[in-house]
This record gives sequence, C-alpha cells and structure tokens, in this order.
Amino acid sequence: MKFYDCATAPSPRRVRIFLAEKGIAVPMVQVNLREGEHLQPAFRKINPEATVPVLELDDGTILSDAIAICTYFEDIHPEPPLIGRTPQERAVTHAWNRRIERDGLSAAMEAFRNATPGLKGRAVPGPDDYDQIPALAERGRTRVGRFFTWMDAHLAAHEFVAGPRYTMADITTQITVEFAKWAKLPVPETCPHLARWFAAVSARPSAKA
Amino acid sequence: MKFYDCATAPSPRRVRIFLAEKGIAVPMVQVNLREGEHLQPAFRKINPEATVPVLELDDGTILSDAIAICTYFEDIHPEPPLIGRTPQERAVTHAWNRRIERDGLSAAMEAFRNATPGLKGRAVPGPDDYDQIPALAERGRTRVGRFFTWMDAHLAAHEFVAGPRYTMADITTQITVEFAKWAKLPVPETCPHLARWFAAVSARPSAKA
Repeated sequence: MKFYDCATAPSPRRVRIFLAEKGIAVPMVQVNLREGEHLQPAFRKINPEATVPVLELDDGTILSDAIAICTYFEDIHPEPPLIGRTPQERAVTHAWNRRIERDGLSAAMEAFRNATPGLKGRAVPGPDDYDQIPALAERGRTRVGRFFTWMDAHLAAHEFVAGPRYTMADITTQITVEFAKWAKLPVPETCPHLARWFAAVSARPSAKA
Repeated sequence: MKFYDCATAPSPRRVRIFLAEKGIAVPMVQVNLREGEHLQPAFRKINPEATVPVLELDDGTILSDAIAICTYFEDIHPEPPLIGRTPQERAVTHAWNRRIERDGLSAAMEAFRNATPGLKGRAVPGPDDYDQIPALAERGRTRVGRFFTWMDAHLAAHEFVAGPRYTMADITTQITVEFAKWAKLPVPETCPHLARWFAAVSARPSAKA
C-alpha cells in the first residue's frame, strides 16, 4: 500500500488526519503540486485525474478520492469509528460530510481557485485548464460567510459536527476553515462557537498530520 | 420510514433507481419543487436545507443527501450489492461515484442552473438565493463535453462504470446524462460507447422509477 500525498494541500490532509486519529501508518510519497509534478506524465500514469490524494493498494488498484480512501480505512480498521458503528451512524456522518463539502469546502475552493493569481487558468483541479471566473470567487466568499454563520449556530449546541463523537465530518469542517483562511476568509468574531470548536480540533494530536 | 421525493427532480431519482434495483419499497411523499413547496416553512421544518431527497427514519432522524441515503439502504439491505461486498469494492464504487459527481453531475448542474430562465436568482440549490453566472454555465457546458468524451473512452472497454457489475456509479452517470439533456447537451454522435451504455441502463426496469 502506498499513499500519494502533498504536505501542503488540503485534500490529502483530510486523509492524513483520518489516519492519525486511527493510529494507522501508511508509506507516503510526496507529489509536489507547486512545481506541477501532478501534471507530469509519470504521475498521470498513476492517476490520470492529476490530483492527490491517491491510495495505491497492493494489487495495483488506485483510489483517487479522499473520502473513498477514508471509507476503505474505516472498513478495514473500524476503531475508533470516524464514520460510524451502525448503518444509521454511518449515514448521518456521510450526510453531514457531504453537506459540508457542498456548502463549505466547495465554496472555499471556488473563492480560492477563482481569485488566486498563481492559479490563473487553473480554476478547476484536474488535467484540463479553465479560466478563473471572478463572479464565482465572489459567490464563493458569500457562501463561505453563510456557512460559517450556520455552522456557528449548530456548534453553539453541539460539541462535534455530526453527533456525540468526533467524526470524518469534523475533519472536513476543519479543512474547510483552514482552506477559507487561504482565501483570506478567517472565522469572524461573530462566530465564537465555530472558533471554540476549531481551537479544540486544532489541539488534537491529529492536527499535526 | 418516509421518503420525501420529487418525481421530476434528478437527485431523488438517484435514490428511487437504487431502491428499485434493490427491490425495496418505502412510503413516498411528493414535494412540488416547481411550486416552491421545498422553500415553505412546513418543509423547511423537516429539512432546513430545503432540498430533496430526504429520508426520515422511524426515530425521527433526517438524512438529507442522496448518497447518504443509498449507503444506509446498502448497509441494511446488502443484496444485490450496488456499492460493494468488500472494503475494496465499496471504496472503488465511492471513488468512481465521486469522480462522476465532480466532473459530470456538478458540471451539468452548473450548465443548467446558471442558464435556465426559470432559475434566475436560484443558481444554487438550498434556502439562499444566488444570481446566475453566465460564464459558469459556459464552463459547465465545456466540462460536460469533456466528461462525455472521457466516459465514452472508458465505456469502450467496460460494460459498466465501476467494475464488473452495475453499481451506484452507473446510477450517478445515468442521472448526469439525463440532467445534461435538460441543459440541451445530449450525448454526441462521437460518443457511441456512452450511448450504448446509456441505452442499456435505460432499458433496466429501474429506469422507470
């Protein structure tokens, strides 16, 4: 088994935190996104999508999606549960995780990728080039703001994002808050519950992953 | 258990096809999206996200995401497997499904929602209003075209999308092709393998769901 990682990128970090919480060690290979290593033929032979993270299994199977990789490790290494022990727990975690991806993480990505000078012509991850759309960066900023407000209200009454335990949905929210900072959208002072929760997840040993 | 559906909308159709393939019957409640029933207080009390599908479990738990609902039914009713029997099969299906959502379904949604006159001011699903972005509709159209070409090449050598069996990833691709038609993006003549595959999945009894 081999994990293709990029230490500075948000998506592989989701998996690294997940693995750290489980106490699983996997051999890591660094892919230098800043130098465009993911767009070179050698890496595109491994993953034609030209994205990280990638998990290569021992039989050569390629998993090129952070959440697919997390579900695999949850299945083969169930403790501690980060998705859930029962069908209902698992479904609730997936529902939260996907909502946060739609309303938070995607919005932060749109805000960042469509406005950052270094990503001109690279507004969408993957092998194809797309121009930045300034109006989409602006819409992303608005959506991140609404996501923060909504998540703050939720966390006012809950210790964790998706139920009584820390789950994969907390990791996705953590990455969203970190990614939003890259887009110069820090958690505002009007969101103290989100800030309290973020300080707590950032103090976990897994945050160093 | 109760399923909040809209017979004309793509997202709940994903679940209806999944249930039909499994042979599961669930009580259905229709929510009329065209008349804005999802934005009314009565429905937003059930799902504040103002989207369908929603599965309400017997203990009142709400699952408001198509894939979260499918994972729940796969767990409690594993046969026939539509996600997978082993950790590896499940991870492969999820990876394909998410890739198709990113590169196909999201692109078709962007093309449709940002250009359809009836969705002016409603470019993003959910409770908040967002203006359409014409450049995003155009980008979505380009991305759908690339998705079709890529999927056609894949299906030239494969009967199904994600391995040797029909899976949830086939359903997501089916919905993408149908949704793209709404955006006036039919499968082009240059993609005969995708067309052959689409005719085959459309001939399954589940396509009537």
